Amino acid sequence: MSRTVAILGATGLVGRTMLALLEERDFPCETVRLLASERSAGRTQRFRGRDVPVEAVHQGAFTGAEVALFAVENPLAQQWAPVARAEGAVVVDNSSAFRYDPAVPLVVPEVNGALLASRPTLIANPNCSAAPLVMALAALRGLGTLRSVVASTYQSVSGAGSEAVADLEAGLRSGLDGPVPRRPDGSPAFAFNCIPHIDRFESNDYSREEMKVVWEARRILDLPELPVSVTAVRVPVRVGHCASVHARYDRAIDPAAARQALAGFPGLRVVDDPASARYPMPLDAEGIDDVLVGRVRRDLADPHGIVLWIASDNLRKGAALNAVQIAERVVGAPAAAR
Amino acid sequence: MSRTVAILGATGLVGRTMLALLEERDFPCETVRLLASERSAGRTQRFRGRDVPVEAVHQGAFTGAEVALFAVENPLAQQWAPVARAEGAVVVDNSSAFRYDPAVPLVVPEVNGALLASRPTLIANPNCSAAPLVMALAALRGLGTLRSVVASTYQSVSGAGSEAVADLEAGLRSGLDGPVPRRPDGSPAFAFNCIPHIDRFESNDYSREEMKVVWEARRILDLPELPVSVTAVRVPVRVGHCASVHARYDRAIDPAAARQALAGFPGLRVVDDPASARYPMPLDAEGIDDVLVGRVRRDLADPHGIVLWIASDNLRKGAALNAVQIAERVVGAPAAAR
Repeated sequence: MSRTVAILGATGLVGRTMLALLEERDFPCETVRLLASERSAGRTQRFRGRDVPVEAVHQGAFTGAEVALFAVENPLAQQWAPVARAEGAVVVDNSSAFRYDPAVPLVVPEVNGALLASRPTLIANPNCSAAPLVMALAALRGLGTLRSVVASTYQSVSGAGSEAVADLEAGLRSGLDGPVPRRPDGSPAFAFNCIPHIDRFESNDYSREEMKVVWEARRILDLPELPVSVTAVRVPVRVGHCASVHARYDRAIDPAAARQALAGFPGLRVVDDPASARYPMPLDAEGIDDVLVGRVRRDLADPHGIVLWIASDNLRKGAALNAVQIAERVVGAPAAAR
Repeated sequence: MSRTVAILGATGLVGRTMLALLEERDFPCETVRLLASERSAGRTQRFRGRDVPVEAVHQGAFTGAEVALFAVENPLAQQWAPVARAEGAVVVDNSSAFRYDPAVPLVVPEVNGALLASRPTLIANPNCSAAPLVMALAALRGLGTLRSVVASTYQSVSGAGSEAVADLEAGLRSGLDGPVPRRPDGSPAFAFNCIPHIDRFESNDYSREEMKVVWEARRILDLPELPVSVTAVRVPVRVGHCASVHARYDRAIDPAAARQALAGFPGLRVVDDPASARYPMPLDAEGIDDVLVGRVRRDLADPHGIVLWIASDNLRKGAALNAVQIAERVVGAPAAAR
């Protein structure tokens, strides 16, 4: 085993989680190559007991890497994906740069991992709220034909990166003893607040984050016309995204049957005993791989609807874990290593 | 003017806000009588520049009071409402003890204030998430026939009282520098968390808080069969409840017409210019009387649906303000004082 995996954006929250997961999951590689901006070059990060230096990304940086995990913003992904592919790496990209390109598969392995059989050399990793949502909806596929989805998200600040988490923490410290300041860039405080604005707004008055969930749910579930409406909200939580989901079918869905289908789906864990105060919460989802689903009940507003509450670690299944799972399939890792 | 207003539960978050609002709104009364448990007796609270003593509630405590504002839990409301009425006070009760009694009007003055014309001596004040929701839905009444409502709430911790706010703050202080502890009573941390559990659970797996919004929306809007489905979630915000609302009609609703109708409704303020980062947020709703409504847009999951995002001060319109507004109508306060 002399396989090399490169991580571009290795020093960010998602990049660091990717590295942790390669170790945690005993990913079949001998070497990791940690790539980042000039600014981060020279640092080291721990991997399997050794300090691995972070290099500035450069032409040739991907030579010899079988897989490159990208955890950078769209412009950098667009700049380096062709380079990495030309140098022989299969790119798994966590940005949204390629997610809506019909030539690039957008993959949640448990849902549409079959798309990897064609050996694509560029694979898009979905949005942090889309991935857990499509897993739950895929689990329910056998119970009826899905007609529409309404989701309201409760997204943690780590989804906006490590600087945002520092802003949240600084805002909380100030706000505990006095007024809550706006963020250093003048935007509304994360602390003690709910902000219905993630990414920029589109011409239909939905935020791009909301539309990402719409577009990606359709693509990943292979239901290109599925009516989906989303409200995406940032809440003052560090890690763990939640969503309140109303899914409507062509028939009534029995909550017990839904729970059973969810429990049988890989990567989902049903936490649903509200009378005993058991339901998904971000503090319980943080640091684990499973997507937690609970509060399963009939939709009182629609006889064919079912309501769910989902919590998952946005840095894991919503980002790094899904990417590493894709990489495992790309290299044909044995099931045990998955 | 020798009118007396009593506040039962005067030392709690809602009771203190009631007192502040009587002063802020120049309520036409000469005297306030502050009533609470034995434990709080002997304290004083400021009102119009004077220190008013807090008395332990007792038989005779309401004699001479024209209005009694109740801000206590259900058992105390049930115990003292008959006493206060027998002693001649009109009771405006913020608990849920009487909200579902057909003999007791449940009132949001801007929506169904006409119910006060019959001079009831016991009036129920609605749930903190129900009041802002019904205001927005009432504003849209002229645009179509409402068919169903789906709402997901983002409720601040002050809705659970001042001890809960102290728990949130203690949890944040711990969590900023180490692990986030559970609450002193063993329940899940408020800090850095989203908890889909407010009040106890009903046999249909909805929480009682969720069902309160269902039942109260139907009563206040006088639409007893309206299909309503709610997910009620506690978020780590101190003051200010939000809701993501999908309202569906018998026809398509133009967002611009909806904005205009909302802007023309008393007590609502439209904050809806997302491109300029203007939308309702709890930090902006805190301390103000208006219910903020924005993110008005077509429901992508239903051609006859409209989506809203609401933020309001749960201690004001969600509780104390609505009660004081009812009291103003009970005593026939001039419009200027409203």
